[in-house]
Amino acid sequence: MNAFHPIDVILHKRDGLALSDEEIRGFIRAIVERTPDCQLVTDAQIAALLMAIFLQGLDSRELATLTSAMRSSGDVFDAAPLKTFMVDKHSTGGVGDKTSLLIAPILAAAGLAHLTDEGVPGICVPMISGRSLGHTGGTLDKLETIPGFNSQIDLKQLAETLRICGAALIGQTPRIVPADRTLYALRDHTGTVESPFLITASIMSKKLAESLNALVLDVKVGSGAFMPTYERSQQLATLMVETGEAAGTHTVALLTGMDEPLGRFSGNWVEVWECVDIMQGRWHPMSADLIELSNILAGWMLHLAGRAPSPEAGSEMADSILRSGDAYKAWLRIVQAQGGDISVFEDPAAHHKPAAKRVLKAEQTGYLSSMNCKQAGWAVQRLGAGRTKPGDPVSAHAGIESHVKLGSRIERGQALFTLFSEDEALLEEPEQMLRAALSIGQTPPKLLPLVREVVSTESIQRQK
Amino acid sequence: MNAFHPIDVILHKRDGLALSDEEIRGFIRAIVERTPDCQLVTDAQIAALLMAIFLQGLDSRELATLTSAMRSSGDVFDAAPLKTFMVDKHSTGGVGDKTSLLIAPILAAAGLAHLTDEGVPGICVPMISGRSLGHTGGTLDKLETIPGFNSQIDLKQLAETLRICGAALIGQTPRIVPADRTLYALRDHTGTVESPFLITASIMSKKLAESLNALVLDVKVGSGAFMPTYERSQQLATLMVETGEAAGTHTVALLTGMDEPLGRFSGNWVEVWECVDIMQGRWHPMSADLIELSNILAGWMLHLAGRAPSPEAGSEMADSILRSGDAYKAWLRIVQAQGGDISVFEDPAAHHKPAAKRVLKAEQTGYLSSMNCKQAGWAVQRLGAGRTKPGDPVSAHAGIESHVKLGSRIERGQALFTLFSEDEALLEEPEQMLRAALSIGQTPPKLLPLVREVVSTESIQRQK
Repeated sequence: MNAFHPIDVILHKRDGLALSDEEIRGFIRAIVERTPDCQLVTDAQIAALLMAIFLQGLDSRELATLTSAMRSSGDVFDAAPLKTFMVDKHSTGGVGDKTSLLIAPILAAAGLAHLTDEGVPGICVPMISGRSLGHTGGTLDKLETIPGFNSQIDLKQLAETLRICGAALIGQTPRIVPADRTLYALRDHTGTVESPFLITASIMSKKLAESLNALVLDVKVGSGAFMPTYERSQQLATLMVETGEAAGTHTVALLTGMDEPLGRFSGNWVEVWECVDIMQGRWHPMSADLIELSNILAGWMLHLAGRAPSPEAGSEMADSILRSGDAYKAWLRIVQAQGGDISVFEDPAAHHKPAAKRVLKAEQTGYLSSMNCKQAGWAVQRLGAGRTKPGDPVSAHAGIESHVKLGSRIERGQALFTLFSEDEALLEEPEQMLRAALSIGQTPPKLLPLVREVVSTESIQRQK
Repeated sequence: MNAFHPIDVILHKRDGLALSDEEIRGFIRAIVERTPDCQLVTDAQIAALLMAIFLQGLDSRELATLTSAMRSSGDVFDAAPLKTFMVDKHSTGGVGDKTSLLIAPILAAAGLAHLTDEGVPGICVPMISGRSLGHTGGTLDKLETIPGFNSQIDLKQLAETLRICGAALIGQTPRIVPADRTLYALRDHTGTVESPFLITASIMSKKLAESLNALVLDVKVGSGAFMPTYERSQQLATLMVETGEAAGTHTVALLTGMDEPLGRFSGNWVEVWECVDIMQGRWHPMSADLIELSNILAGWMLHLAGRAPSPEAGSEMADSILRSGDAYKAWLRIVQAQGGDISVFEDPAAHHKPAAKRVLKAEQTGYLSSMNCKQAGWAVQRLGAGRTKPGDPVSAHAGIESHVKLGSRIERGQALFTLFSEDEALLEEPEQMLRAALSIGQTPPKLLPLVREVVSTESIQRQK
């Protein structure tokens, strides 16, 4: 191979050319192998390439190569010894979106029900999750409100947990896709976060490092989605499906509505509590959308794993696993395997101890006609449930409870949301933010289904 | 003013919006005021903005504001006390381009011929020049082959030299346009050098820091030009003229041919020698194009300074100043004022002492039909006259002598170029590069005039 010059890669992308596989791999290698003394590539050069990619884009071959180069920049989970079907779900992030806490147990229960000849669950879900940032919550922050729960396990322990439980709920390790940590930190402060190409490479490199047979993506649309328009969510879904398929992982994306907080609670412990209630059979009316979406996503996973003839049949299967208590049993198994104290699930409501509370009441009569869901997410973050920058602590007990949903009939003075916080002083601004995020109209709004569209290889082919 | 966030500026330019004056000034201020402990803006953020500007461009208002913000980032020459007409010339860089060494003395002589009431030359030329980089030569490297010559004088000494001599030939000081040093170093290694917008801001901020009444730009076109096409040289010329005029400096750009090395010699001392010969009245046939171009550029400067009714009349005036010996007298005055030993001009040929020499001979008979002039410039650099990176030393005696010009009739075996170097081993590669740069054809080529086009406010208006 000739000497690698980062500047040539930048010049080519700047001028709108497609980068060669060698150029892409060389650039990622230089990022990972550089040291303070030997800057094979500088932050400024990486930033320049990121902006050039943002503005000039990548074709599908370049995107697949970038994703695979990033995936190979660190440790990759070796699923071969398990001889099982590896499947995962990833969401682009929402408010009150706690489907992972239900889906992992549902799939684990399905996997445990059919062990392989080697005694391994027939389906394994290596759910590597993230933390809250911006207006969206993070699965790890929720899980860590369970006393003793350890999400920082290595890939060896992951294999062991999957073997025993059929699922694991863990965090990124520093050795998985190290290139993404460098790239993400730079994107974050150089205005290159929102590129669908860079988002795809970042998400998919981490998911593909789990060595998945199949992946279901939950791409949010609506006022609480990360992408600003439906079309851009659609584009992102298409890129992610193509990139997953190019890497040999059967990938399907569901465009789902994020127009209001999902389920009853948004926060950290309150979201664990909501899921435990559901798995124990206490279904609160406000949790209906959460249960529906979790069953749909789990249904697709079961279908892709060959356990259900259709996603719809898979969804029904998920629903019975949830109702039967099998999901709860799998949940206890997973939490215990990861060191968590399951005694807190005996009375989860009792463990919700916010120091301050406030009820937001309706100022007029009508229907909840729309919400700025992103604004609602920021209110949850300001209450203390989220963070301003990576590394900040989050409050276990901060959050909100929804008493109404879009389309609900509202009477003046009725409780709409309850806000929880560690400090009375932290309630004021979020209350105003939430109030500003609501619209109450005089006629019931037209409600859209939770799943707006399914993007798959087949649907992409049909488009072309 | 609100808190300044570099990321907002990046996002706006990334999304193709025009930046506000406040945003542009804030960004430049952050670059200059940052310290290692307080990174108001990081290298990565600057690189991201540079790439966004490269790809999205700047409108004329943004470009004028950027240029003026860069100009104001450091010391600006205060020309007011001189009460004279300040005029300068700038070239985008060529091979064997030594017009500055003739133009400064010609204009100085014209200025000294008509002192103001305060006894100051009626025209002053504050020629702040650069060093060789890439395939082009640098005026300072040439001047510094004169023993004792000091180009590193401050703005106070510049005023004094102008008062006495009517011209000064000096280098950038670290305090003139410090923002450009940061920006240029980053552009150089992030692939954002060739943006006409960034080139304009870089060149014009430094020229406008001289507080000029008028400026003549020599924008090269052809195989040795920095810009790759005629159209892009034209665009650059237009942007520079508009930016100069927006700052109140009467600006004209000439698009001139750089299809072969200009004049007889390309190198460092050899170029001083060629100019001294001309100023002393020994006109070598190979210097004809150099003399013509110098008179044309000086003619425009004299015209803009109100000393000639037309550029053509100015050119004739420049020619007589050169022939009369007045330019040579002004030259001696300038060199002496800057500490140079003028005794070397008594026999300049005797001071050319290359350790190694080689004559490149024609392998066939015909006409010199075309040259890759950029390649010829790189040959000069490789001989030792140029540098690979800023700060490298250059050889005083390395260079080439042209024995033929485009269109010359060539006999097989005839000397085409003589190569000079400090070391026999350094001759081999440049000889091959030069040979490869030449094309000898069987019919005489069509020759173009030196000046291809004049770009001025009037010509831009006519285009619109």
